Amino acid sequence: MGDLIRISYLVQSDADHVRARAEALLLEQTVELSRAAVRDAWVAEHILGRVERIEPEGDRTYRIMIAQPLAAAAGDPAQLLNLLFGNSSLQPDLVLEGLALPDEVLAFLPGPRFGATGLRALTGVIGRPLLATALKPMGLTPVALGRLARSFALAGLDVVKDDHGLADHAICPFERRVEACLRAVTQVQSETGHRTLYIPNLIGTPERVREQLRFARDAGVPGVMLSPMLLGLPFLAELARDAGLPVIAHPALSGVLRAAEPALLGTLFRWYGADAVIFPHAGGRFSYSSETCRRLAEALRTPHPLVRAALPVPAGGIRLERVGELLEFYGRECMLLIGGSLYEAGDRLVEVTRALVQRVATVAAAEQAEAR
Amino acid sequence: MGDLIRISYLVQSDADHVRARAEALLLEQTVELSRAAVRDAWVAEHILGRVERIEPEGDRTYRIMIAQPLAAAAGDPAQLLNLLFGNSSLQPDLVLEGLALPDEVLAFLPGPRFGATGLRALTGVIGRPLLATALKPMGLTPVALGRLARSFALAGLDVVKDDHGLADHAICPFERRVEACLRAVTQVQSETGHRTLYIPNLIGTPERVREQLRFARDAGVPGVMLSPMLLGLPFLAELARDAGLPVIAHPALSGVLRAAEPALLGTLFRWYGADAVIFPHAGGRFSYSSETCRRLAEALRTPHPLVRAALPVPAGGIRLERVGELLEFYGRECMLLIGGSLYEAGDRLVEVTRALVQRVATVAAAEQAEAR
Repeated sequence: MGDLIRISYLVQSDADHVRARAEALLLEQTVELSRAAVRDAWVAEHILGRVERIEPEGDRTYRIMIAQPLAAAAGDPAQLLNLLFGNSSLQPDLVLEGLALPDEVLAFLPGPRFGATGLRALTGVIGRPLLATALKPMGLTPVALGRLARSFALAGLDVVKDDHGLADHAICPFERRVEACLRAVTQVQSETGHRTLYIPNLIGTPERVREQLRFARDAGVPGVMLSPMLLGLPFLAELARDAGLPVIAHPALSGVLRAAEPALLGTLFRWYGADAVIFPHAGGRFSYSSETCRRLAEALRTPHPLVRAALPVPAGGIRLERVGELLEFYGRECMLLIGGSLYEAGDRLVEVTRALVQRVATVAAAEQAEAR
Repeated sequence: MGDLIRISYLVQSDADHVRARAEALLLEQTVELSRAAVRDAWVAEHILGRVERIEPEGDRTYRIMIAQPLAAAAGDPAQLLNLLFGNSSLQPDLVLEGLALPDEVLAFLPGPRFGATGLRALTGVIGRPLLATALKPMGLTPVALGRLARSFALAGLDVVKDDHGLADHAICPFERRVEACLRAVTQVQSETGHRTLYIPNLIGTPERVREQLRFARDAGVPGVMLSPMLLGLPFLAELARDAGLPVIAHPALSGVLRAAEPALLGTLFRWYGADAVIFPHAGGRFSYSSETCRRLAEALRTPHPLVRAALPVPAGGIRLERVGELLEFYGRECMLLIGGSLYEAGDRLVEVTRALVQRVATVAAAEQAEAR
């Protein structure tokens, strides 16, 4: 069959039917016919994958491991999704648990072009997690967002990014926002020497997103953010290939009932080209479990000889008090995204943000000392 | 607040917390801040929506109805998705149940440009459901698929479309496939007078899909198919606007989202520009309920003064024996997509397909006579 894509699904079934279910699942993703109706020998040999393993995984649940030929993906980032979870995503008895892609997919998936290392290098920060926040709420003018960006930069954050809901609103056109925020962080750098990366949110139809990318790059932004599930994962692959800038991925619309978060936001976002991936940390308002977060970070960072590690960006209701816990959980190779709790500080925003920056530096230094 | 987008969610909650949950849900979709942290008066007035109604819907489940200002969507098909289900799709305690869009969204969503009527007009068929099949399996050459297209056209099908997994495989390049299949149905028309529409599957990154569209249109195809959840819903809006051809939407990968099928495949696919929408009919291998199918078809067809009706295309394991049931269920204004059961006929493919065509004509005629 040539190179193989390996996929595992967790399937609800009883023991009597699980073999037939596995066979049906295998066929659904490619030929979408019964085996008897596949009358072409070349197809049977080169397109039909195989069920590699069926193992029990708890009560009436089985792990079905399937190998599909890479040839079936046709060198196409969109068709690869069909192969993994096209029709089967409609079937309520299974979840996509995980996948392993052969290196040959790098012929059509870019992987992170900058990765955790490249993004970190832009900030110049070593030895501690990066610290980021989001500019919000939508409805503020470019001038007001520029002022916020200035406050956060003065307070010493490493990254200030647009909220994922900042689009091309009449009150805050994309181009004016990018200019105002970029000007703000550049100004702070000339005043204090501290570099804060301003990263705008690209959103819209592909045509409009391409325009935004061109404008932002020409203006000199150091990276861009986008939501792959809003825009389409294949578009992420195309943009990451062409952008020439680090891409931070936001999980909007990824509402994953049937694909495990580490598989979608971890493996797929990384291989499709995200340099950093935002996701809700456990214990906030999004109910991911600690185990999910651990696996997701692992999927983003596991060393691979050809695919750079992407930076995990835990977010979602993170507060100052939790910094120690987060550092312990993710280690230093991450970016903490802290939003709401800073905004609640109102007029004390710079002060509270500064306290956060210092807290992270202190905790990281203490850990480093301990490690010696 | 100006024009409103109305959205209903089904949320798991107990009575004590449902008000707070509704408030949190409201804020999550736009400002993503607590109400206290929204310090800008313009934002509070123009961007914050409101909870319009909370009603019990079964055990520990509530329907929360929210109105969001259209202005928050920024005239952007991608940002509209954020507003409906961006961050909240990550929260496991709710599903997006339904939505009502104001006419003003038609400034940036195309709606069906041809609709059920336009697609039907291309076939010339009146008084009965359209009949369609899919060309498969992947792995066949353009010549083999052209032969299949010829058989189905000779048997009298109205539409022969690519399977959604037919991409740009090395053994079957997109351009060669389109030429071969188009030639086959054109040839049959010149021999028998019967017109079968050949509709190719567009798949890939936006750049590649644009190339495929240009080629297919120049070659003279009467319509195209694509999978909006693979390619991104915003891209559907852009393509439907520009294609100049009817667009059939396939549900691949749509199961990833925790949104009710009538809302996603019905309302959203229609307003984003699909002229016909394929979905699995109840009782096949995909487990949609009859009620889901009924509502989905209704969402596609409910009359609207400005948005054309889209054609429901029930599929997924439909067999000859079920034609009567399907006609009763959907009426005549649909397209039946029948695949696997025809392929199982092997060498009797033309014969079995012809029987199907005749069966549909007979049932429809009988119903019509009865109605007189």
